[in-house]
This record gives sequence, structure tokens and C-alpha cells, in this order.
Amino acid sequence: MLPDVVREAADAVGPFREEAMQYGPLMGLDDLRVEICRFVAEDGIVARPENVLVTYGAKSAFDLACRVFVEPGDRIILTRPSYMTAIHIMRMHGVQFIDIGQDENGLSTDELEVKLRRLEANAEPMPKLLFDVPDFHNPTGVTTSLPRRREVLELAQRYNFLICEDDPYRRIRFSGKAVAPIKALDSSGHVISLGTVSKTLAPGLRVGWAIGDAGVVRRMAMQKADGGSNTFAQRIVVQLMRSGRISHHIAELTERMRCHRDTMIAALAEFLPEASVRTPNGGYFLWVRLPKGANADQVVELGIRNGVEASSGRLSFPSEDPGNFLRLAYSFAEEDQIRDGVRRLAAAFKSLRPVESSTGISSKGKR
Amino acid sequence: MLPDVVREAADAVGPFREEAMQYGPLMGLDDLRVEICRFVAEDGIVARPENVLVTYGAKSAFDLACRVFVEPGDRIILTRPSYMTAIHIMRMHGVQFIDIGQDENGLSTDELEVKLRRLEANAEPMPKLLFDVPDFHNPTGVTTSLPRRREVLELAQRYNFLICEDDPYRRIRFSGKAVAPIKALDSSGHVISLGTVSKTLAPGLRVGWAIGDAGVVRRMAMQKADGGSNTFAQRIVVQLMRSGRISHHIAELTERMRCHRDTMIAALAEFLPEASVRTPNGGYFLWVRLPKGANADQVVELGIRNGVEASSGRLSFPSEDPGNFLRLAYSFAEEDQIRDGVRRLAAAFKSLRPVESSTGISSKGKR
Repeated sequence: MLPDVVREAADAVGPFREEAMQYGPLMGLDDLRVEICRFVAEDGIVARPENVLVTYGAKSAFDLACRVFVEPGDRIILTRPSYMTAIHIMRMHGVQFIDIGQDENGLSTDELEVKLRRLEANAEPMPKLLFDVPDFHNPTGVTTSLPRRREVLELAQRYNFLICEDDPYRRIRFSGKAVAPIKALDSSGHVISLGTVSKTLAPGLRVGWAIGDAGVVRRMAMQKADGGSNTFAQRIVVQLMRSGRISHHIAELTERMRCHRDTMIAALAEFLPEASVRTPNGGYFLWVRLPKGANADQVVELGIRNGVEASSGRLSFPSEDPGNFLRLAYSFAEEDQIRDGVRRLAAAFKSLRPVESSTGISSKGKR
Repeated sequence: MLPDVVREAADAVGPFREEAMQYGPLMGLDDLRVEICRFVAEDGIVARPENVLVTYGAKSAFDLACRVFVEPGDRIILTRPSYMTAIHIMRMHGVQFIDIGQDENGLSTDELEVKLRRLEANAEPMPKLLFDVPDFHNPTGVTTSLPRRREVLELAQRYNFLICEDDPYRRIRFSGKAVAPIKALDSSGHVISLGTVSKTLAPGLRVGWAIGDAGVVRRMAMQKADGGSNTFAQRIVVQLMRSGRISHHIAELTERMRCHRDTMIAALAEFLPEASVRTPNGGYFLWVRLPKGANADQVVELGIRNGVEASSGRLSFPSEDPGNFLRLAYSFAEEDQIRDGVRRLAAAFKSLRPVESSTGISSKGKR
């Protein structure tokens, strides 16, 4: 559900043309940084414009953070599974992963603490950075509980690593109460909050941000290859935020995404009852576990041949992959397409299963 | 002189909304890659869409090339002086500079050859890459001659380094005949051509490209942090290229820039006759040499306090700076502003000179 930005684009090519077509300030348009402060204040994040760096989306912001804070060989903490593109970015920076399990309350701080203690005891290099998506985690949909957020922050303070809190889905909440961002709990400067309009407005605009200590975001800005970035799209986002149209759009989008989620959950129950899935309270994805032994890669491959796209869970695992997970996005397809897609995927799954078991039988009976 | 893109923006938010607001293909919009091939064909560059990677401008393209081809400590060849932002990008990648002088025909291939031979003879690591702006060089305005282009290419082939040919100003030509891009002379895959619409349309759009071997540009694409980049602005550029409006805009812009250049040259002759400057046949800059011993940094600093912006030549030198150069952009100011700016800069220069000489006299007469 993409926004109608006719009015805002007309502003950007009309009254704001001089600004929108020209090189912009390194940190982003001042007007946008003010609006971003207002936007995140609704989540309890206290930020001033000097704390905000405008980027080409949260991914670019994370890449800039890696450029500043990690060297090849450095350790980064992340959940297992984690956001596939973040894994790709970290790999580009040549880091080593400390991957930590996750339960229904988020990243396992117990497991993390054990690993940190062991590293410390062995006098090994300590991690520089932790990456997580605490709200409607990509891919699992889990929202980290408040106590768990406090524990993660405490560990960051004790072991002195930086938390990159990537929060693209926060506003797409269907039910339940929002939990404070880790950034809102942080008074020691251990958190960089990464935001974007890709999931609330449109990915094609490429507007996101990093919020952190003024000195930190300024160092990140110095790592930009092209200075002030895309003033044209930034102006469109300013206008959408100023007029409050972004909030209306998010409200409509959330309602729509809730229906999509329900349709996909129902379709899975109908066509693929062998799969298990936890219903997320928000976000864009379902994280689907196929029965043990199922080959998600093959299901996806056959699905694509039958006209349905899904992601193999393999892409979301920084190291070992259990092999039987799928990430299904309900965001951009319409409801009948979602039903039809799940049906095709289920057919792919089923056509692969019987072959295996019949092979099993025939090989048993062989000679 | 910024383009009017009302119609194109209306297309991007209207009939092309689904595409323009969504994630795009990693390599850029197919339509845009086709148009870029047509655009560079006018310069004699033969490229197919698979040779084209769309980026956030030429700077981003160069950064991606550095990500693929250089490691910290690697050597890069560049002119002395060179484009300041390219120097910044190379520094971010931790490279060592092999800086080579430039005359009115471009980079000194004699000096380069001597240095390459010496490195080879000493069994030292050879350079991976050469960066140059052969048309209306930034900052000197020099256009590399055809024989010199052939020589650079020959050296690249012999010593196996890659040429990054950054060509943002090529179409802003006031007089004289265009020289073939090095890319058009290359049949061995030793050249990546970097292009942008920042100087022909608008920097705020952030649309540029790299043209090279299909495998090379694909490797560069894998280093993007955010996938398909800004589809919205890409669509606007497609529409401007398809309709031919870009050519009309370039023709008008070139005429305007010629007047700006003439105004600035005349103002320098009138207000700052002590300076020497070579009149460029195109592009956006004058490269001004102040008399020996003048301090360009101080002139710029005082100029800024007096309401005129200029760049100290220091920023354009990869290592030692002669100290007495200025880069003056005539691109974005109006003609009366250009005259007024040069007058203020000349006043800054003069107010600094007498102080120096009178200090000299008074210290002579001291005690």
C-alpha cells in the first residue's frame, strides 16, 4: 500500500525546488532532522537535531555505523536468525559473528552473558557492536520484552559495546502495548537507533536515519561517499511528516497489514497445517517452521517455478541453518494473492514430501 | 540552473507509482540502464544494459569501485591536484597515493611511467587503480588530449590497473571539439566510466552510474548497502532522458555556464589582476593561482567572513599543497553575484597582502 505523494512531490519541484534539486547539508535537511525528532519523541526517544543523521534508509545507516565502529575481524553480536541484509552488510565488513538464540522475549541475554564472560575470561577481543530488531523482529516477528531490553543495555554498558537498534516495523503494530525502544532507556550513549520510512511510507524514497550521540553521528556522516544525500526525497518526507499525513498513512497501512497477516495465517492453517507459526503482533513477516527434515531451499525453488516468492530461512542465519524455515512476507501482495501463494507453496512442499517418503519405501524394498 | 521536473515527478507519483515507490532491481531500473546506454553512445561508448550499474551519483560509484578493488594500504594513481571528494573517499579506504603532475594535455604519462617502472624494478606492490577526470578536470579545468588518453590506457593495460574515468562535466562544453572518453578507446576492460546527472540535471536527485564489464559492475552492485537504490528519482531521470528534455536542458545550461565563466574571468581581470588563470573550455570551475607566497587558506577564510565562498586549493592536493591556489565555482551563483564575489575575494586577498609587506618593513626597521 504505497502512499499518494502527489502534493509533496509538487512541493519539492515547486516552492522547494532550489533546495530539493541542490546538494544538501551533510547531516540531512535541517527541517527533516527536526521532524524526525518529533516523530521518535512519540516513542519516548529524546533527540535533538544534532543527534540525527539522515541516510538512504536504515541499511545505509547501519553500513555507516560499521564503517566507523568495526574493523575486519571484529566481533558483532546478533540474533540467530537475524535480518538477512544486515548479515550481508556485516559480512562485507569482514566481521566475526557472535550469534545468540532468541525466545518469545527476544535475544537470550543469559546466553549472551555466558559468551561475554567466556571471552573476557579468555582475554579474547570483545565485541564492538550488537545488532538487533527489537520490534517485530526480522524474520521471527518477536518483540523483545522490556526486562530483556534493560538487560541487553546493561550488558552493553558493562562490556562497552554499541547497540544498533534497527526499528523499521515499530509503528506497524496490530495489538498489544508498545515497549519502549532501547534507545529511550539509554542514558549512557550506548545505543544508535536506526529508522526508516521504507516500511511506513515507501522504500523507493530511500530516506532513513541514525540517532545517537552528536559526535557519533557526525563521525558516521564523514563516512558518507556522497555528502548530503537525496534532498529531493528528503523534502517529500518533511512535507509528509509536517502535515501529519504520515500518521494517517501508517494507520491505514497497519489496518491493511493486519488483514494480510490474518489471511496468511488462515491460509497456512488450511493449506499447510504441517507448518508451525507464531502469530506476530505487527510487522511484515511470518516465520514458518516446516516439519523437521523438510528442505526449505527446495520448497522456495519449486515455489518460484510455480509463481510464488518466499525466502528460505537459510538467508537469515549467520552460520548454521536448521534447513526447515521459511520467511513469508504478507506486506506487498493482495489478499487473494496471499491465499493463492500459500496454496502454491503448500503444493510445492507436498510434492517434495511424498517423493522422499516413497523413495524411502522403494529403497527399503530394493533387492 | 535547476531543471523543471514537474511533469516527470508527476509521472513518478502517477502512472509509475508502483515502481517508483517500491524497492528496485539491484542494478537499477532496466529502463534507466537502457537510457544510460543511449546517452553514453553519443560519446562513442558502446555499452549494453548489463554493463550499467545505477548508483547515487558518481561519488557512490567510485566508492563501490574502491570497495571491490582496493584494500587498505593499496596504491592509487591520481592527478596532483585532484577532485577533493574523490581524495576523501580514497582516504576512507586507507589507500596510499601515487600523485602525478598534470600539464595542459592532462596527466603526465611520462612521470607516471617512470614511477611505475621504478615500483616494478623495486618489486614493490603495483597500483590497483587510477582515478582521473579527463574532461574539464576538477579542479584544473584541463581536458586530457587524445594521445595522452591512449597513453594512460596503454599503461593501464601494461601494468594491469583499472582506470576510473569520472566524467561529470563532459557535456558542459563551451568550445572546441570533444575528445573520445578513455572508455570508448578501451577494448580490454581496463576502464570503468563513472557518470552522473548531478552536473547536467540536479545533484539532489542522486542518480549516477558506473559502466564497465558486466562482471565488474555486478561485483560493485554486491557492495551496495541498500539494494536497488532510489527508484523514485531514477524514474524521473528515465522520463527526462526518454523525452529528450535532458538534452535541451544541457544546451541551455551550457550557454548559461559559458556566460558565468566569462563573467568570472572578466571579474578576475578587473579586481584580481595579480591572479593567473587558464580559461577552461567547459565545466564548472576556475583554478586560480595567486602570487607565490599568498595564503589561499586565509583568503578563503576572510572571504567567507565577507560573504563569499571559495575552496582553498589545499583540499584538492592529495599531499603537499603549494598554498596559493583557489578553486572558484561559477556554476550556481548568478552573474552579479559572481562579480560581487570576486570583488570581495580580491578585497580579502589585498587586505592580507599589505599587512604582510608592512610587517616586513616594520620588522626591518625594528630596533
